[in-house]
Amino acid sequence: MTNPTQGTLYGVGTGPGDPELVTRKAWRITQEAGVVAYPSAEGGDSFARRIMADAIAPDAIEIEMPVPMVSGRAPAQAIYDDGAEQIRTQLKAGRDVVVLCEGDPLFYGSFMYILARLRDEFSTRIIPGVTSMTACASAHNHALVARNDVLTVLPGTQDDATLSARIDDADAVVIMKIGRHLGRIKSLLMSKGLAEKSLYVSHASLPHQQAEPLTEAPDTAPYFSMILLYKGDDPWI
Amino acid sequence: MTNPTQGTLYGVGTGPGDPELVTRKAWRITQEAGVVAYPSAEGGDSFARRIMADAIAPDAIEIEMPVPMVSGRAPAQAIYDDGAEQIRTQLKAGRDVVVLCEGDPLFYGSFMYILARLRDEFSTRIIPGVTSMTACASAHNHALVARNDVLTVLPGTQDDATLSARIDDADAVVIMKIGRHLGRIKSLLMSKGLAEKSLYVSHASLPHQQAEPLTEAPDTAPYFSMILLYKGDDPWI
Repeated sequence: MTNPTQGTLYGVGTGPGDPELVTRKAWRITQEAGVVAYPSAEGGDSFARRIMADAIAPDAIEIEMPVPMVSGRAPAQAIYDDGAEQIRTQLKAGRDVVVLCEGDPLFYGSFMYILARLRDEFSTRIIPGVTSMTACASAHNHALVARNDVLTVLPGTQDDATLSARIDDADAVVIMKIGRHLGRIKSLLMSKGLAEKSLYVSHASLPHQQAEPLTEAPDTAPYFSMILLYKGDDPWI
Repeated sequence: MTNPTQGTLYGVGTGPGDPELVTRKAWRITQEAGVVAYPSAEGGDSFARRIMADAIAPDAIEIEMPVPMVSGRAPAQAIYDDGAEQIRTQLKAGRDVVVLCEGDPLFYGSFMYILARLRDEFSTRIIPGVTSMTACASAHNHALVARNDVLTVLPGTQDDATLSARIDDADAVVIMKIGRHLGRIKSLLMSKGLAEKSLYVSHASLPHQQAEPLTEAPDTAPYFSMILLYKGDDPWI
């Protein structure tokens, strides 16, 4: 049971990067928020906060969660514990808290770690956002998935055997979180004769967006990059 | 090559149904549009137009594409041929045309049929939207997909063997376009011992949204309904 004198926890999707690709609801709720929380990279830059900068009230209380970019769960868990505790304090004081989440909060989002820690105690509302996946398809004016096709979304961190089997079974494929896996995944798609059909996108919807056929992609990819593959010949007619 | 004296074709995602879940960009571009096109069901109701009603200028030219709800491709193709021809006339006259698309234009969207007919002739821009998939996860405050999980999106129209194999291989599953397939899919998930973990949603983000565990879902489902399944025990910790 939630307590009506407590604040509401909002998980707010900020979309892929362009501040205009934020929903009207996410923008309004952020403008009205007295407390805004967000993850940041080491060094203090927060992509989610940059997207929403023009919506955050000047006098809003801000809670930064500096998520360490090292492998292993323990350091990140400590940050989410600490962030959740700061958010809990505000909610108990009766203030609504908006947690900003790149893309959509429930689609590979770190908001889920905050949600797990607080949802049994507080009223919670999630505002869905545009995922980077559909923004990447838009960057190419190309179908992500059509008709009665099966779409499979794969993190690039999966091993070759898993990637290979799942690619074979799908009509349309999205490979997320490419980063340092680019060379390996490109080789895999070449070995299957699918590289020519694959599309590469980084920084979808931002001014420095790159959208190229995979065969013309750069040799190194940032974490926020993606490969799209539509295996059919023409999804559209 | 596109002609600079011609208008631009915009494919605009309207999101899952709540007019506040439209992006700021989609709203602005629709407000500025002199010509707005959209699919409608037989009887004239257009879900996409209803979502965007408050953004469409009173003097905008409107192009309605009455998509027949019968099986077989030919009748729908004739409607898209006719709609594309009306849009072509406006674009050639130098007017931008906004085509409204429920959800995201490139995610199982009928916009792709218009795109196929016009993209080689005209400058085209696509504005991604919130998909019903993430709106359904939000309705349950539940992870759609997390960490390094594989997500598979399946149209409910697929046969049992395909659904079964793809469900077995995925960590997270979305089954779209449930409609009259509800009973069959529910039985399939029960036979796998997965019905208890499955979530049902219809009309996500609308006032008459239904969000229930699948075991408590109604016996009949509308076309705009979905089943979500997260096979892991706890995606969040």
